[in-house]
Amino acid sequence: MTGQNVSQAVHIGELGDQLRVDAIRCSAASGSGHPTSSMSAADLMATLFTRHLRYDFDDPSNPHNDHLIFSKGHASPLLYALYKAAGAITDEELLSFRTLGSRMEGHPTPRLPWVDVATGSLGQGLPFGVGIALAGKLLDRLPYRVWVLCGDSELAEGSIWEACEHAGYEKLANLVAIVDVNRLGQRGPTRHGWDTGAYARRMQAFDWNTIEIDGHDIDQIDSAYAAAAASDRPTAILARTTKGAGVEAVADREEQHGKPLADADDAIDELGGVRNVRIDVRPPANETEPYQFGEPSPLRLSEYKVGDSVATRNAFGEALAALGAARPDVVGLDAEVGDSTRMQKFADAHPERFFQCYIAEQQMIAAAVGMGVRGWTPYAATFAAFLTRAYDFVRMAAVSGAELRLVGSHAGVAIGQDGPSQMGLEDLAAFRAVHRSVVLYPCDANQTAALVAAMADYPGIAYLRTSRGDTPVIYGPGEEFSIAGSRVLRSSAQDDVTIIAAGVTVHEALTAADQLGQDGISARVIDLYSVKPVDAQTVRDAARDTGRIVTVEDHWPQGGVGDAVLDVFAQGAEGPMPQVLKLAVHGMPASATPEEQLRTAGIDHQAVTEAVRSLLRR
Amino acid sequence: MTGQNVSQAVHIGELGDQLRVDAIRCSAASGSGHPTSSMSAADLMATLFTRHLRYDFDDPSNPHNDHLIFSKGHASPLLYALYKAAGAITDEELLSFRTLGSRMEGHPTPRLPWVDVATGSLGQGLPFGVGIALAGKLLDRLPYRVWVLCGDSELAEGSIWEACEHAGYEKLANLVAIVDVNRLGQRGPTRHGWDTGAYARRMQAFDWNTIEIDGHDIDQIDSAYAAAAASDRPTAILARTTKGAGVEAVADREEQHGKPLADADDAIDELGGVRNVRIDVRPPANETEPYQFGEPSPLRLSEYKVGDSVATRNAFGEALAALGAARPDVVGLDAEVGDSTRMQKFADAHPERFFQCYIAEQQMIAAAVGMGVRGWTPYAATFAAFLTRAYDFVRMAAVSGAELRLVGSHAGVAIGQDGPSQMGLEDLAAFRAVHRSVVLYPCDANQTAALVAAMADYPGIAYLRTSRGDTPVIYGPGEEFSIAGSRVLRSSAQDDVTIIAAGVTVHEALTAADQLGQDGISARVIDLYSVKPVDAQTVRDAARDTGRIVTVEDHWPQGGVGDAVLDVFAQGAEGPMPQVLKLAVHGMPASATPEEQLRTAGIDHQAVTEAVRSLLRR
Repeated sequence: MTGQNVSQAVHIGELGDQLRVDAIRCSAASGSGHPTSSMSAADLMATLFTRHLRYDFDDPSNPHNDHLIFSKGHASPLLYALYKAAGAITDEELLSFRTLGSRMEGHPTPRLPWVDVATGSLGQGLPFGVGIALAGKLLDRLPYRVWVLCGDSELAEGSIWEACEHAGYEKLANLVAIVDVNRLGQRGPTRHGWDTGAYARRMQAFDWNTIEIDGHDIDQIDSAYAAAAASDRPTAILARTTKGAGVEAVADREEQHGKPLADADDAIDELGGVRNVRIDVRPPANETEPYQFGEPSPLRLSEYKVGDSVATRNAFGEALAALGAARPDVVGLDAEVGDSTRMQKFADAHPERFFQCYIAEQQMIAAAVGMGVRGWTPYAATFAAFLTRAYDFVRMAAVSGAELRLVGSHAGVAIGQDGPSQMGLEDLAAFRAVHRSVVLYPCDANQTAALVAAMADYPGIAYLRTSRGDTPVIYGPGEEFSIAGSRVLRSSAQDDVTIIAAGVTVHEALTAADQLGQDGISARVIDLYSVKPVDAQTVRDAARDTGRIVTVEDHWPQGGVGDAVLDVFAQGAEGPMPQVLKLAVHGMPASATPEEQLRTAGIDHQAVTEAVRSLLRR
Repeated sequence: MTGQNVSQAVHIGELGDQLRVDAIRCSAASGSGHPTSSMSAADLMATLFTRHLRYDFDDPSNPHNDHLIFSKGHASPLLYALYKAAGAITDEELLSFRTLGSRMEGHPTPRLPWVDVATGSLGQGLPFGVGIALAGKLLDRLPYRVWVLCGDSELAEGSIWEACEHAGYEKLANLVAIVDVNRLGQRGPTRHGWDTGAYARRMQAFDWNTIEIDGHDIDQIDSAYAAAAASDRPTAILARTTKGAGVEAVADREEQHGKPLADADDAIDELGGVRNVRIDVRPPANETEPYQFGEPSPLRLSEYKVGDSVATRNAFGEALAALGAARPDVVGLDAEVGDSTRMQKFADAHPERFFQCYIAEQQMIAAAVGMGVRGWTPYAATFAAFLTRAYDFVRMAAVSGAELRLVGSHAGVAIGQDGPSQMGLEDLAAFRAVHRSVVLYPCDANQTAALVAAMADYPGIAYLRTSRGDTPVIYGPGEEFSIAGSRVLRSSAQDDVTIIAAGVTVHEALTAADQLGQDGISARVIDLYSVKPVDAQTVRDAARDTGRIVTVEDHWPQGGVGDAVLDVFAQGAEGPMPQVLKLAVHGMPASATPEEQLRTAGIDHQAVTEAVRSLLRR
């Protein structure tokens, strides 16, 4: 049957069995994987690929392609079996499943050119899909569709309901969630079992179109996809399926999750043996070009006068508005705190490229990732503290290799009265521990503006930390600041000690250096605005020249500026290690003025001078 | 009117105005705060305190007390005004709002004995309330009620829908969400404005009882509370309110969020001036004692034979089941991966104290915190990678000073084929950066069992990291392991170098030490199973004795074991710093066998021997 064009035939059921067989085969070859979770969705996907998906496998970057996301990423054997049936990969590559060096990873990642986003942390695929669908409707303005295969278990994740709320409210008719209701989770029955009505009621309440079907009835599946295409709202197809469908030994059985079939050969026989049915997936009709918001123009950042006082969050908002004017690919996302983060300045300047995600940080990050899939350049901002809400999404964005610019405002105890719930005190640690991330923490307005622009082209996840209160402008307009840079603000040939700071503590360090200077102690001061990567050479030079380093940061003692400095000396540095003293926030803060907070936390200029003196006494 | 018993009178409206006045007064005194968000909910709370709340302010630990959570924590001025009206605090303390040292923090925390949980990160109060309500229904088996005041904006958070799903499914009739639908968020109108029906439809779909009312009509409020008490399901009271109600200059106006009133004196006059109405909140009727699951008994941990191979996740499950037998206060929570984390062993042994939260990690953590409020000893487990999903909840649990035991399985690249989405590679960094946390990472089964027991009484957040694959048992049964400890596994007077490892890399370190020994290189090996706090003395001794340290960990390079070791030398250590070389995971892993993963990541025994040799060549 090699090469038979099933898209013209009715043998979709046969293709479904081939997909099952291939899922069983590759899982058996690897000795691991999720064949039963693949088998339940095989007919759903066979019908989609044969009759409804519009995709050019020879040109994955075609802007008119539909998008398919396996939110249940553990069904990767099914996805790879589909790729094989579509002629995108060979049977040999399929059977390299889960082996070293193979693109056939345990859960799909964009190492495969047809995969938009990495999945495997459940409840994320639909939110990412909402992002792509938003891009399709409101940015690209193209009619591509976004198909998301969800598991039933993952509908327990709150992020799914953030996605449902956003998609329902925006009437994303280009979005279809295909829910594989196979009733069995990792360790037994799901909460709602085969009650597809329970899910339908919930999604209808969020203004979705819902269709309940038998997920193994090709005609019902086909009709549901057609109805979804005709809907003016997002559609959820709630498909009752059987986990392990087609093989009696595993069908609808507990304790068959996430393991190869015990008797793969018998199962393959039961399914009719190995086939080689090919699907000719129909490519999209080429239509209009993606929409563009005008032409690029030179960047004109706001300029701040040295000696003025300006909050870095203000400089961020103004810089992003300016960047949006210069670059029509820049978009902004807010989680209903734009008035505080100053994302509102971008919203006011570029309302068509601004997305209000309301208080749903996970969906905000997912939407940004989804827009990035389509080549847009998203900046997403909320309080640094509340980005912790979306940490798993950031983690998975890194697995995707996504390009993402995140801005966390209200960093540290310096926010003052609002108290610890609003203080970002772990954000440096969290973002430094993201693969290939960049972490930037400016201390003045011109530096902030320069870094907002520098982030735009970073090919990974770039995080900018901003401050609530005004800080003195110490750098002139137009000074250049690059990722991995630093600034030596005080320096002499006779420096006794080095103070390394970033953000608000730079100003404390400068005051301390002045005070120490009056006592004849010469302190070098480094503004380590790039917390990751660190300007290791400047730190090493300081260690060599002064032998003593005090670090000071508005952050918990773990994982921030101090640890970034120490790490320099664990990376193969030659010569003696310096004496290092780390100042950071140790106690749980409460309410107080910003000045009281810095003093109480032991990270103000007085704490710095005392630390320097204690280090010099050793 | 001092001391008038409003609970008998009908002057609830007058009390509402007093609460508004006091919210305005304390915000004016501090120059910050959220009076308008307090004013919208004043009548709702005045009615609750006067007629429905059962609470003994003189005995906050009374097990029969109702629980009141301000999920909209920024309405703290209202909460404190209520405390004043109830006679729990003085007017003077009220007016210390948001000042250094005051208990009247910007957002409520359990520094106040009547506050169960810290709020201020929106969307968390209801999930915490679900935890307390679960405790009331299924653990304590007492009729106390849980009242949660929510904002409308926060209903966009996915965590709210995780809470609704859990509460609806469990038919938590003891839970009432009072939603203050004032239609204005931080930066403008909310998504659904005053459409209380939009919220009602959604919550009904999640099987809640819903009641839509005018939130300023005392009779409607009163009837709604009465109806909630009679419901056999959780109830949401969706109250249409006016932000800034009672003061025309701010009522229902945008740009009045989170700031004191411009003219407080006029506003207070408009509201009828300062009053001193007292509420006699009715204490609970004393009823039966909280339920107990039997009597404590001696702990009998499983014993593992040295030389056997056992996965630490298995040892965790068995130890927790044993701990549950010894301690009737221990409860277990799962996010539908109990089969993998081995929480299932606890579930099988103690089904009445086991809570299946399905794939909703935020709600799982929140439920654990809520049960902890009532004195239960919760252990919650999922994959280490998926605990990132609940990082904001862990952060806020630390602000609450909660006692919480978290277990993250499937740590690091050592899991093998499943790939990066399932690998916890940032968990050490994330959990080390939690205030007062403890981070434990055992390498063998007996050590795991001992640490599971040691965690039980830690008065803060204790995190245990477990591994998927089998590891050799190297410690005898009954060996003692304590928080802040370590084990020196190889040591001599002539050690040339120290290798510091934890978890799976301990075994790599031992193999490396053996290989090095054959070449006449003597390596000390430290099992740093307590990653926070670190056994600083043992690390310092090693630095003094050997001068060279190699750290090796199955984690990103940031924030883990290596940084914990470096930090020892930044905390006022005397003497020369050692040479340190950190081995950790640098590249993004894909699928491979566990052995291939360790080798590819450069953290296996061969990488350790090479690192030692390179350090010795310096």
